[in-house]
This record gives sequence, structure tokens and C-alpha cells, in this order.
Amino acid sequence: MRILVLGGDGYLGWPTALHLSASGHEVGLVDSFARRGYDTELGATSLVPIVSLEERVEAWRQASGTRLATYIGDLTDPVFTHRTVEAFRPDAIVHFAEQRSAPYSMIDQAHAVYTQMNNVVGTLNVLYAIADVDPSIHLVKLGSMGEYGTPNIDIEEGWLEITHNGRTDRVLYPKRPGSFYHLSKVHDSHNIEFACRAWGLAATDLNQGIVYGQETEETRRRPDLATRFDYDAVFGTVLNRMVVQAVCGHPLTVYGSGGQTRGMLDIRDTVECVRIACEHPARPGEFRVFNQFTEEFSVRGIAALVREAAGDDVAIAMVDNPRVEADEHYYHAEHSGLVELGLEPHLLSDTLFDSLLAIARRHRDNADPSLFDPSVRWRATSSPVGSRQSVLVA
Amino acid sequence: MRILVLGGDGYLGWPTALHLSASGHEVGLVDSFARRGYDTELGATSLVPIVSLEERVEAWRQASGTRLATYIGDLTDPVFTHRTVEAFRPDAIVHFAEQRSAPYSMIDQAHAVYTQMNNVVGTLNVLYAIADVDPSIHLVKLGSMGEYGTPNIDIEEGWLEITHNGRTDRVLYPKRPGSFYHLSKVHDSHNIEFACRAWGLAATDLNQGIVYGQETEETRRRPDLATRFDYDAVFGTVLNRMVVQAVCGHPLTVYGSGGQTRGMLDIRDTVECVRIACEHPARPGEFRVFNQFTEEFSVRGIAALVREAAGDDVAIAMVDNPRVEADEHYYHAEHSGLVELGLEPHLLSDTLFDSLLAIARRHRDNADPSLFDPSVRWRATSSPVGSRQSVLVA
Repeated sequence: MRILVLGGDGYLGWPTALHLSASGHEVGLVDSFARRGYDTELGATSLVPIVSLEERVEAWRQASGTRLATYIGDLTDPVFTHRTVEAFRPDAIVHFAEQRSAPYSMIDQAHAVYTQMNNVVGTLNVLYAIADVDPSIHLVKLGSMGEYGTPNIDIEEGWLEITHNGRTDRVLYPKRPGSFYHLSKVHDSHNIEFACRAWGLAATDLNQGIVYGQETEETRRRPDLATRFDYDAVFGTVLNRMVVQAVCGHPLTVYGSGGQTRGMLDIRDTVECVRIACEHPARPGEFRVFNQFTEEFSVRGIAALVREAAGDDVAIAMVDNPRVEADEHYYHAEHSGLVELGLEPHLLSDTLFDSLLAIARRHRDNADPSLFDPSVRWRATSSPVGSRQSVLVA
Repeated sequence: MRILVLGGDGYLGWPTALHLSASGHEVGLVDSFARRGYDTELGATSLVPIVSLEERVEAWRQASGTRLATYIGDLTDPVFTHRTVEAFRPDAIVHFAEQRSAPYSMIDQAHAVYTQMNNVVGTLNVLYAIADVDPSIHLVKLGSMGEYGTPNIDIEEGWLEITHNGRTDRVLYPKRPGSFYHLSKVHDSHNIEFACRAWGLAATDLNQGIVYGQETEETRRRPDLATRFDYDAVFGTVLNRMVVQAVCGHPLTVYGSGGQTRGMLDIRDTVECVRIACEHPARPGEFRVFNQFTEEFSVRGIAALVREAAGDDVAIAMVDNPRVEADEHYYHAEHSGLVELGLEPHLLSDTLFDSLLAIARRHRDNADPSLFDPSVRWRATSSPVGSRQSVLVA
């Protein structure tokens, strides 16, 4: 298949592109380098050094003999988006190209608006490009388990059968997310479902859990194929961040009571889930939703596992929760769709911890401990004109 | 109370501002004149002539002895929005200031993106301005009954009690709207609910049905207090448009089988509902939803009523439905919240038809019949680069 990966220079976009390429697909990459720009803005860098897109594409050519097509531009530009889809003519588009940090979206008014505009407009433009160029292109869109929030009922895969006052319907699962970033994904899902209904597009919405890990079979082949590894409080996912805190001798920061339970998955399962979704497309007009995670953990459970793996001298610091979320709540989410299509999950294991800890130790000197602590507070105080400033970035 | 009406120069914003002023409130108006700009773009005008905002504000001063404060600017500008809220210091903000036409949002990629950006960013900026200036300001936001779509279960007022796998929760009512415009309102509702939860804001979401009528007690006082009256296929609401078609000897255009059932209300009830919502504010942290309509009609039922009132020589033309929607469907929507707070509905009556027909006859010469027929098709064919062009506007 011909597969276009939007956001192909990012933490997950890059290893996904390699995995799809290694699986025999022809792969194109689209990126605006927005993610590298956030590093500059926040004064952060990937713990594991990454090379430029040009260099890593050349490295993959040397490692695999395969060329990845690249398209540099911004999806919020509709002409760029249309022309890229027209030029590459994909069978499937994998869409990672969104601002993906909840804290980043909560910095202030400007970051909230940027996040929603960047994500919603980019996705609208992708939908129009598909409808215009070839409505049979399968859209595989990355969503987030965080879109659901923490309802007191079981979380189903995107849709819910309801009986109410004696009548029954299958409705979109009601979501109640906890940040302007997660809201942008909810907006996307509604827009995509409408495009499937109105234009007959075929889409798969992957509501992904929190990803951990840094290596895949493909990125391990050469150091210059490495993907980024974020450990800062804005872009670092919880397990990755705690592993780096552990090797730096910094307390593991647990927000609130740490009873927040979340679906999580190994980066190797992310790339495999996307491959499976591409190779088993949604039907025309179908808005298909998978919950893409493999195990549920509480945040304090994760901290305990990291301490167990890293050694008893690791401290755990319970800090005031900077977010507005329930610390303790019911959580049970369905996630059988991808397993039924063949996913064989990597479960969180000692081996994974050994490998992650080894990576973190190897690059420990790159870590800036000042980036560990949460700097963005959801309930911010008031602020200068036109900007609800929750944090001073950089 | 001090009440700031956003979109105070529009079809409903203007009569609402007058009604609130006549009810003893101190009223400020915000407008960017975007609605007058759409007229220019579409080559359409209000059937009933309207004067400039400056002139109508002066007319109201002469008629009532009361001055309305005016703020001209765009809510997508966060500094303008913040400074306006800070300058007027309202107790309540009534938010009509959105692009409100479903067909307009479906013209092409540019109109879809404009609609979602204008509406979502404007509302985000209003939320930030409230949170920053005074979180106790009550936001009264105009939504649409069209956000719900046509589910096979009863439509409740914004929230739904669900029992699923033996557990129960109160969730946001799952919505499945039928245009990028209606989607923008769904996005707004999710963002507002989050702001209530995260920042303790108080908000009332008024999911309004289709409004008919042109006069209120206040706008009748002088001709230069008239509000606009749209009859074109893009901005004209169904009953208003059909009345103008009838007096022009044009067939009443019914889309599809005309079995689409919708909640509707008299413009005099719109202004009264908003007054009631303002005078009975939501609690801090509460996201309160009312379904703001008084009666349910099918589109072919409306056409039959217009023919009955206007005379038997009026033809009814069933045209291909340009929208993607169910022509025949279950429809039952709850709408008791505003009645419990004191709303006394004006039901659709012969008197109303007599008055509307008289208005339409008086201004018949202003009508351009070329604007009656639907020009925007939801399932558009493909288009030039970067623009899914469904209609040639102007």
C-alpha cells in the first residue's frame, strides 16, 4: 500500500513510518517541524539525540534500501495539503500531525487557541483533500484515550448502545476531556464522523493510551534512526519521564494521590496498531474507533514499578495536582478491536524497564532536571490583557 | 444587571439587546459587522431594510431614553475581547456572535474552516476573558437544536442519565450534527463545559430551535428599530423564507420529502428566553443546558401552514435535498427548563402568519427570487486545488 504519514518526524510518526516501510509499504512523510519548534520555545530537547529529517531519511535508505518521500509544510495550509495528497496518492493517510501535549495547550489563551486551530484546521484540510482527491483514501487518525475523561461507566470503543425511555440507538460515546488539547481531538472526531456520513469517507480513529518506550525494531538498527525521547513535564509521557527522573536521582513526581488510572501501551505496539489499522481499512462511510492501549495502570502504580526496577533509593514525591482531574475514579475501558485484528501486545515487563533504564542512563547527561516539575497549572490565576498566562515558558 | 450582547447587530442579537434594555438592564453591544459582510459576499440583503448600528442605537435612545454602549471589533482578537469585557464589566454575557448558517459552512473548505475558526476561537477568547476579568460573569451562549441531529432516542436538555453494564453516570448528551456549522457549536459546548469544570465558570447553553418572525414589542416601536429578515437559501430560516416565497408567487421549496421535524420558536420567545436565562443565572461551575424551542413541526407541515395562510394558489415544490440528513426520523425533544423558569410561549398562530405575510407583502419588491433555491450541496463533487467548491457565491 501507499501510506502517507502526517507528522512523520515526531516521537511516534517517525518509528511508524519506518515500521510501515519495513512491512513492505511505500511510505511518504509530511511534517512542518512544529514539534522541534516547541523544543526551542520550551528550552527542552530530546534526551536521546535525533538527527535532522533529511539525515534520518538517508539513514533509512542506507539501512533498508528504501526511500521515503518527504513533504515539508503545514496542514493548516489547504493548498499544501491538497497538493501533497494529490502528489503522493496514498491508499491510507496516518495522521499524527497535531500538537499533542495537554499541558502545552493549557499554558495560556494563545496556546489553547493555537492547539485547537492547528489540530482542527489541519484535520479539516485533510478531510477536504481526501474528499477532493480520492474519497477512497482511508484516514487513520490518532486520537487519545484522554478524550473520554473518567466516566463512571465502562468506556466502549467510540460508540455506545443506549436504551433511553424505551427506545434504542447507537450513539457516539459521550466524552468529557480534561484539557484544550484533548478537546481538540474530540472536535476532530466529530468532524471526521460527519465527513464519513456526508461524503462516504472511510476513517479509523485510534484513541491511543499513554505511550512508553523509545525503541522499535526499526529504530534500533542505527543510532541515527532513533526517535525522540521527551522527559519534560510538558511533553514527556508519565512512564518515560519517571524513568529519567529515576536515573537522575530526582524524586518521581506523582500528581495528587496518583490514583489516576490510564490505558498505556508500548511504542512497539503503537507502530503495530497503525500497521494493522492500515491493512484492515474501514469501509466507505464507516467511522471506526479503536481504543489503542494494552494495559491499565494507576500513576502511583507506575511510580512503584519504576522504583522497583531502578532501585530502592528512588524517592516518590506526591505533588499538588496541577491538572483538574479526578485523582480516584472508576476506570474500565474496552480495547478488543485491535486484538481481534491480530495485535499481540507487548506487556510492561522487567525487560522493558531494563532497556528503558539503560537508554536513560546512557543519555542522563542530556537531562535538565529543571524540566521535570509541572509548570503549567490548569486553574491559573488571572493574567495580563489577552493572555491567561499559566506558566512562563523558556 | 449589566448585560453584554455579543453579535448585537444581528437578526436576533439586536432585538435581544432592545428587549433586555426595555426590561431595565444596562446593555452593551459587541459586533464586527461580519453578518452584513456575508450579505455583500452572497449578493443578498435583508428583505426589511435595516439602518446602520449607529443609527439604530440612536433610534433606541430616542424611543426609550436609554443609551446602548457599543464595541466594534472581532472576538477572534483576544485583546479586543479581553478589553471589552474589562471595560463594560458585565454581570452576564449573551453570545450570539457566530457564523450561524449551515449552508454557508458547507460552501467549500474555506467557508468550513472560517466557520469553525470564527466560532470556536471567538468563544475560547470569551471564556478566557471571563476567567481573567471576573469568573462570576454568567455566559449565556446560543447553541442550536441542530447539534443533536436526529437520534432514535428522546433528546434531553444537554445531559443524559445513562445506565450501562450495571453502572450509572450523567453524561453530556451525545450529539451528531449535520454541518460544519452545527459541529462548531458542538465544539463550543465541549469547550464551555470544560471551562465550567476547570475554572468554575457559570454557563447556560441555549440550544435554540429554528426561529421565525421578524418583530418584537421593541422593534415595532419605530421602522428604524427593525431587525433583519433573511429569505435566501443560505441565511433564511425555513418559515421566514417560505412566507417570502409565497408572496412572490414562487413555489415553497421543500427539501426531500419534507419529513424533517424540527423544534421552532417565535422571535419574541427568543428574546424572552435570553432574558429569563440572564435573570436566573447558572451556578458557579455549572454548565446548564436548555432546549430553546416551543413547538415541533415537519418541513412539509410548515409548507402546508404557509399555503393555508397565504392562499391556495401557492405551489409547493419538492426539491432534491441538498443536505445530508434523514428526511423521515423519530423526533422528540425535551424543552421544559425555560418554561419552568416562567417562559410563556407564543405558539404559531394565524395572527403570526397574518403579521408575517403583511411584512413580506410590504417589502416584496426587495426580494430577489434567484436567492430562494438551494445553491449549496452537502455532497459536492471534486473541485480546484485546495477548495471543495460546492457553490459559486455572488
